[in-house]
Amino acid sequence: MLRPLAFDADDTLWHNESHYAETQEAFRALLRPYHDDAWIDARLHDTELRNLGHYGYGIKGFTLSMIETALELTEDRLDGAGIRQVVELGKAMLAKPVEPLPGVAEVLQELSNSYDLMLITKGDLFDQETKLARSGLGTHFSKVEIVSEKDEGAYAAILERHGIRPAGFIMVGNSVKSDILPVLALGARAIHIPYHLTWAHEVVAAPGDAPFPVLETIRDLPALLASW
Amino acid sequence: MLRPLAFDADDTLWHNESHYAETQEAFRALLRPYHDDAWIDARLHDTELRNLGHYGYGIKGFTLSMIETALELTEDRLDGAGIRQVVELGKAMLAKPVEPLPGVAEVLQELSNSYDLMLITKGDLFDQETKLARSGLGTHFSKVEIVSEKDEGAYAAILERHGIRPAGFIMVGNSVKSDILPVLALGARAIHIPYHLTWAHEVVAAPGDAPFPVLETIRDLPALLASW
Repeated sequence: MLRPLAFDADDTLWHNESHYAETQEAFRALLRPYHDDAWIDARLHDTELRNLGHYGYGIKGFTLSMIETALELTEDRLDGAGIRQVVELGKAMLAKPVEPLPGVAEVLQELSNSYDLMLITKGDLFDQETKLARSGLGTHFSKVEIVSEKDEGAYAAILERHGIRPAGFIMVGNSVKSDILPVLALGARAIHIPYHLTWAHEVVAAPGDAPFPVLETIRDLPALLASW
Repeated sequence: MLRPLAFDADDTLWHNESHYAETQEAFRALLRPYHDDAWIDARLHDTELRNLGHYGYGIKGFTLSMIETALELTEDRLDGAGIRQVVELGKAMLAKPVEPLPGVAEVLQELSNSYDLMLITKGDLFDQETKLARSGLGTHFSKVEIVSEKDEGAYAAILERHGIRPAGFIMVGNSVKSDILPVLALGARAIHIPYHLTWAHEVVAAPGDAPFPVLETIRDLPALLASW
């Protein structure tokens, strides 16, 4: 039996946060006649967090939060054409090509010979499924788990469902909060590969001396695993 | 080992389509100064179908489709306050109490003694999870599968994942298209319990002489299963 090795998706296998950043820049441009950038960013961030309990993660909720923020920041003066632009910004994000990060396709191909590869991602089910399909990476994964939150309980449920002992489980991802800390808390191992952007909601204070390896690129992963 | 018995959720275990109908009535009221009801309904339905490929199923996508339809039907003249009302209609739907249909809680309790109960539902992951939690019915189900589409392939994947033979599987639901026909196609059994409303997208021509039982209420389910 191959040993299980799990990957996060967004910003670990393919670009994601950079699409949000581009969209947010277009959103700022739309509202620049009304407010300065810092204020627009702060209000959008507040609206997103307030709406997480209604919408969960994903582009549709982000689009609705942009619309709400735009109305708030313009005191309802943004016209129909402006709102339509925001709706289209969301649709454009959903239609963006899914670009695997450098080295991802080769490394997954190589590791699939000696590991049973899993994908564990949070967010919108429909959106994540279509992204995986469009990425062309789907065939490498024997198991795909899309969850609404990646906390200790969610990982414990996944491991139990597949009969995996924590001691035999390794998770690879870009988010210390979602991919690393809850996995370590279960007694499993985790490998951090940072992305150059992190959504403010995912930022946590790094533990003093990180008790997990940090890689610069997924290309360094096979050598690290071989050393274990 | 208990025999598997699977249930659809929306409009099988709790009211759902009636919430859409109420929301759509409020949406009509907002646009009545511009168009007649039939035209509003027709345009909203078209927008929803066109957007299914972008948004998938669920309330967030429906809300974005209402916004798009409102802008289209008013030629962008709907003002910010009007758009805000549509956003709030969507949020109100997400916050609606989840009301189990009559008899559901008792029947699930009874059947859980002799069957391994599964929930198989399509739609927005976050939304369906919070509805199940709010319904108070979660403890009856040993397995919960939330999928983006309920077709033959999706059911086949679920059965394989849980090691269930089609001949030993029974599905109960309100949608002939999503709960009955794909299950019968796999060689499993399905029981239809219609809800008084059906979303236009889910309506299919009923087979001439329905090769599946149709119950008026879930209260009749234990007796039917006992007769098999």
